[in-house]
Amino acid sequence: MKTKKVNTDELKFGENGLVCVIAQDYESGEVLLQSYMNRECVDKTFASGYVYYYDPASGLPRKKGEASGNTQKVVTAFLDDDKDCLLLKVRQKGFACHTGTYTCFAEQIKGEDNEIGGEMFGKLQRIVEERKKNPEEGSYTSFLFARGIDKIAKKAGEEAVELVIASKNDDNSKVVAEAADFLYHMMVLLAEKGVKLSEVCSELYKRNK
Amino acid sequence: MKTKKVNTDELKFGENGLVCVIAQDYESGEVLLQSYMNRECVDKTFASGYVYYYDPASGLPRKKGEASGNTQKVVTAFLDDDKDCLLLKVRQKGFACHTGTYTCFAEQIKGEDNEIGGEMFGKLQRIVEERKKNPEEGSYTSFLFARGIDKIAKKAGEEAVELVIASKNDDNSKVVAEAADFLYHMMVLLAEKGVKLSEVCSELYKRNK
Repeated sequence: MKTKKVNTDELKFGENGLVCVIAQDYESGEVLLQSYMNRECVDKTFASGYVYYYDPASGLPRKKGEASGNTQKVVTAFLDDDKDCLLLKVRQKGFACHTGTYTCFAEQIKGEDNEIGGEMFGKLQRIVEERKKNPEEGSYTSFLFARGIDKIAKKAGEEAVELVIASKNDDNSKVVAEAADFLYHMMVLLAEKGVKLSEVCSELYKRNK
Repeated sequence: MKTKKVNTDELKFGENGLVCVIAQDYESGEVLLQSYMNRECVDKTFASGYVYYYDPASGLPRKKGEASGNTQKVVTAFLDDDKDCLLLKVRQKGFACHTGTYTCFAEQIKGEDNEIGGEMFGKLQRIVEERKKNPEEGSYTSFLFARGIDKIAKKAGEEAVELVIASKNDDNSKVVAEAADFLYHMMVLLAEKGVKLSEVCSELYKRNK
């Protein structure tokens, strides 16, 4: 684990004085929004740890969420190989889009609506944590939280055994279903214990080193 | 599950005739590259299902990976709220960056190097599948694949029980470690069965509907 020193000197601003910026949800990997920064925005962002975008109307840096409270806190930052695009992994407060959706990329124009990929884990974590904070009548997740860790762990154990059994058969759709069952219950277990998915990911990363 | 009809009529091209495009790994959620398309690139991309970027040198659309074979196949596509940026979730062949790294955003300028977030799942899947294809002496993953499904499932079951036990104690670092252990073995199990993480994610998505 090595803390990177911020070095934005390499950034290549375009003729308009701007670089492209992509904000990505640190926990889930969802792409939240795409915008631009000038030099001042970049400096303010890394000095404060909160994202500032260029406001084309005023020509000034504007702190994301200054009015709404929906700020973006920078966890990590990456540069692309031609140094004209900045990728920020952020902790999003509230939602990223001024229209009220979590990400600005809410309009799907191609594909199936359940084709979400690995981001589903982070999304599921958000949903489960939300249900923990705000229990809902009739919600199975709320029921699990109400019953506590013994019930949650018991269900996780059961689903793991069902995954093991499915893995011994030839029907892969059962493997998919049981893996989904387990992962959902694991997410409830992690939320009950106050563990973030990203902590588990960091642990996996370390082991892979 | 509803297939979206491609509608790029809403896209707002800038004065230079281009829209911003972000390519994201469908399986893992990793942001692969940022580039631009003109109208012709957009049309060719959705007509062929493979990504074409605008080549500023020639002014022509260029199929990503035409020379290298490192193509990007579009799975799903999203528009942002102001319609000037296209987010493509793709299946990347080989690697996205001409420098030979998987993503173009390889230079970390802020954060800890293990701060990877939810993308680690997809990354782990890639590593595990690669090890299945190309076994390595001394690799624990290769050892598991060599021993087959009984060993893999047994280990997954053991780790699930250890997660359950850790969840009954107060040390959250143990919960993180056991969840990581389980998820790694689950990933080996899924790879052994030929199941993709994204299939599990689609299943989770359907249940959440």
